[in-house]
Amino acid sequence: MSLLADLRAALGDAAVLEGEAMGAKSSSDMSLTGTSPPRALLRPRTTEEVATALRLCNAAGVPVIAQGGMTGLAGGANPTGSEIAISLELIRGIEEVDTASATMVVKAGTPLEDCQRAAADAGLFLALDLGSRGSCTVGGNLSTNAGGIRVIRYGMAREQVLGLEAVLADGTVISSMNRMLKNNAGYDLKHLFIGSEGTLGLITRAVLRLHPPPGEITTMLCAVESYDHVVALLRRAQGTLGGIVAFEAMWRDYFQFNADALKLRFFEADHPFWVIIESTMAAGAIEAFLAAALEEGLIADALIAQSHAQSRQIWSVRDGHPIEALPNLLNFDVSLPIGAIGDYAVACTAALKQRWPEAHVSFYGHVGDSNVHICVSTLYRPGEDMHSVDDIVYGVLGRYHGSISAEHGIGTLKRPYLHLSRSPAELALMRTLKQALDPRGILNPGKVV
Amino acid sequence: MSLLADLRAALGDAAVLEGEAMGAKSSSDMSLTGTSPPRALLRPRTTEEVATALRLCNAAGVPVIAQGGMTGLAGGANPTGSEIAISLELIRGIEEVDTASATMVVKAGTPLEDCQRAAADAGLFLALDLGSRGSCTVGGNLSTNAGGIRVIRYGMAREQVLGLEAVLADGTVISSMNRMLKNNAGYDLKHLFIGSEGTLGLITRAVLRLHPPPGEITTMLCAVESYDHVVALLRRAQGTLGGIVAFEAMWRDYFQFNADALKLRFFEADHPFWVIIESTMAAGAIEAFLAAALEEGLIADALIAQSHAQSRQIWSVRDGHPIEALPNLLNFDVSLPIGAIGDYAVACTAALKQRWPEAHVSFYGHVGDSNVHICVSTLYRPGEDMHSVDDIVYGVLGRYHGSISAEHGIGTLKRPYLHLSRSPAELALMRTLKQALDPRGILNPGKVV
Ligand SMILES: Cc1cc2nc3c(=O)[nH]c(=O)nc-3n(C[C@H](O)[C@H](O)[C@H](O)COP(=O)(O)OP(=O)(O)OC[C@H]3O[C@@H](n4cnc5c(N)ncnc54)[C@H](O)[C@@H]3O)c2cc1C
Ligand SMILES: Cc1cc2nc3c(=O)[nH]c(=O)nc-3n(C[C@H](O)[C@H](O)[C@H](O)COP(=O)(O)OP(=O)(O)OC[C@H]3O[C@@H](n4cnc5c(N)ncnc54)[C@H](O)[C@@H]3O)c2cc1C
Repeated sequence: MSLLADLRAALGDAAVLEGEAMGAKSSSDMSLTGTSPPRALLRPRTTEEVATALRLCNAAGVPVIAQGGMTGLAGGANPTGSEIAISLELIRGIEEVDTASATMVVKAGTPLEDCQRAAADAGLFLALDLGSRGSCTVGGNLSTNAGGIRVIRYGMAREQVLGLEAVLADGTVISSMNRMLKNNAGYDLKHLFIGSEGTLGLITRAVLRLHPPPGEITTMLCAVESYDHVVALLRRAQGTLGGIVAFEAMWRDYFQFNADALKLRFFEADHPFWVIIESTMAAGAIEAFLAAALEEGLIADALIAQSHAQSRQIWSVRDGHPIEALPNLLNFDVSLPIGAIGDYAVACTAALKQRWPEAHVSFYGHVGDSNVHICVSTLYRPGEDMHSVDDIVYGVLGRYHGSISAEHGIGTLKRPYLHLSRSPAELALMRTLKQALDPRGILNPGKVV
Repeated sequence: MSLLADLRAALGDAAVLEGEAMGAKSSSDMSLTGTSPPRALLRPRTTEEVATALRLCNAAGVPVIAQGGMTGLAGGANPTGSEIAISLELIRGIEEVDTASATMVVKAGTPLEDCQRAAADAGLFLALDLGSRGSCTVGGNLSTNAGGIRVIRYGMAREQVLGLEAVLADGTVISSMNRMLKNNAGYDLKHLFIGSEGTLGLITRAVLRLHPPPGEITTMLCAVESYDHVVALLRRAQGTLGGIVAFEAMWRDYFQFNADALKLRFFEADHPFWVIIESTMAAGAIEAFLAAALEEGLIADALIAQSHAQSRQIWSVRDGHPIEALPNLLNFDVSLPIGAIGDYAVACTAALKQRWPEAHVSFYGHVGDSNVHICVSTLYRPGEDMHSVDDIVYGVLGRYHGSISAEHGIGTLKRPYLHLSRSPAELALMRTLKQALDPRGILNPGKVV
């Protein structure tokens, strides 16, 4: 095939892999739903090589997929048949940390953890953090607008980006490497590429915003009697504890299942909601906050972790590895207006149990970010369609004006449900953008739009 | 003209004004550079009427301009000749404040101050604030991505928006009224309309994010010996004072001119930089912070305002009304990487003084947001071109990778200089977007792109 020959001539043989040489990684992200390898795997080393590769593929009308760390959970980086995969992994490294401006310039293939470390070495803090930090890449984080555990204080990946460089489908390099917090000189183009999962351009570099380190973090665990109290507690914590750096709620069935399996018991009594709060305030302020919350009945009980070990114990319940052992476990990542999450959980559970009375349905999540995760374990009856759980979870969600993807993106897995969260006019406008930026439709076809 | 007849038939006579009836407001925003009235002024009352108006104008190929409160400072809402102006002022009102979700739904023509008040009445805080709060509208704030004095803690207007409704050039209503902090279900379309100054669509409604009220604010004034110390002080304050809610630096010539004119003297000695910091921390923490900063030489002197009156005195120097009386005063709103602002100020002053040795050039701004304002007073020689000051200020800026607009936008005034801040590839992509969303080019022609 002459395209591959042209790519070899332009990028060198070592940058164009085929067959066995591609390895297994390029076939599927961590959703483990990818089934076929790409047609070829390119490993460019520079933005210019990415541009050359795209120019040639676009001219040939051959589709491409960007691949970062392949830790995505929505199937966004999975080949669907005939694409050429472009791995960004060799475009890696930290170009600069500017301590005066509190910014860093990084290449898109750099693992997130390397960036975190470089910021810390300079006495600063990169406020993006996910469980996959060691293997996910900055380019993947931006393309999925990743969330993680620090969103409540610092925002999503989008909020950490000041500027970026992207290559369009036809090979045009858009260098929008802004380093300013404020810049209203014309359209803010970076937002086109953030969260669009590689369908509008390939991100090759970024300017990230850094923060002063948050300081010593204290972990609290609170027992709460109702979802309304969870929300009231959230607002109180945000108002009086200054910057809280985590607020994670767990519904009884989630908390109890994991705590029992881990043989952890924090309080005598059982409670319908459990909340982890983290704050950087001094001990006195935290004690006063909890005392007032108890006094007013916002919480039923509380403890302050006395050691890192105890803090890790509390988080181990939240991380919820035991629940993953339930049969046929399905995980969902959705968002709703914060005030509606409690009612949604009740309605969703009822709808699932009506169909599968024996189902184990449990909820937990970054409630302060309007984000909730759902764990559903059902015993399918023979011949039953796996998608019927999705239909119920997303169907009930639509009634509460929720979103089918809070942080993981749409990829391939959620594409059939996108219409539940977005109107026909919105979908048409997305297609208009796609058509304008990628008229031949070569970038990650079949994903998102 | 039959378009106006059609508009009358569709919207009613009272909604279509011409001639004297339009009043003076529709001819110019607060930059006072507008010279001609629009061809007609429409006053729709609903999103549907905006859609109808746009559909008719688009079919006729007649250009339109969105007009909000007309407080803009870049000429963005000024007619340039034959446009029909569409005022959003009658599309006003607060539809909902949701305290549990901490969101509010407002119509685009609502004055900012009304929204602030409605949030406060519900025990919450809308974190957008500008001097023009009484007359600017939410739609204008979003279309210009307004900044203001709370950006350092809460971000620009963009960061306060969760969702919006906009009408495209052809009358299509895009309702993207997301209420969640996290939503990665497809492209985040709102960013197209935020900061694009009415060139890609008309904003008709928005979902705004609210915060808990920040609490009691303490004002400090610090004397600082160098720009490097200003930056070090900023980072220290952000790291140890939790959420600082203002950080405003003034260069000597700015501070001294205004303080002298206002007959205010805070310290015996003169200093090259003055910084106002505001924090919501307790008195003890603030005193400890200032003591440590003095000890380490980060600051040369400091005072804590002992009353609201003293806080207002300090801010009156920053507000800088006296300096506006200088002859031919020109104001600039630019941004640069924080670490480069000090050097830029030196180079820009030198370049201006080389040309006009008698010029008064002074700097102040939201340094923590990478934003600096420049006041330039020169005595023009007869026949000299006013634009030569712009040429120097923006010309030197280009060498420091700055932006010609931090918060006020491009409008008409800065359009000739946009190429200094954006590359040809970026400008081409902006035109691609414009072409895709507004193929007949009827929305605010001649602005931004
Ligand atoms: C243990 C674990 C924990 C996780 N926790 C979280 C979490 O808390 N929050 C969260 O949001 N996600 C989480 N994830 C999901 C995943 O880590 C994120 O989506 C991450 O941002 C993906 O980065 P990646 O480099 O692996 O991207 P990939 O999986 O390689 O790609 C993801 C998408 O981005 C595109 N893409 C990749 N690189 C580029 C580029 N340079 N330019 C254009 N498009 C590109 C791909 O085509 C694909 O559509 C977790 C995953 C795991 C395995
Ligand atoms: C005293 C004073 C202080 C100020 N302080 C600040 C400050 O601190 N920070 C700052 O950023 N600005 C400041 N400004 C500038 C100005 O107030 C802002 O730009 C404001 O956001 C403009 O709002 P508006 O409703 O008056 O918009 P307008 O001036 O009416 O319009 C501004 C632009 O937005 C477009 N537009 C208006 N409404 C819509 C809509 N609904 N849909 C689409 N496009 C629309 C117009 O076409 C135009 O291009 C100040 C102005 C004054 C007079």
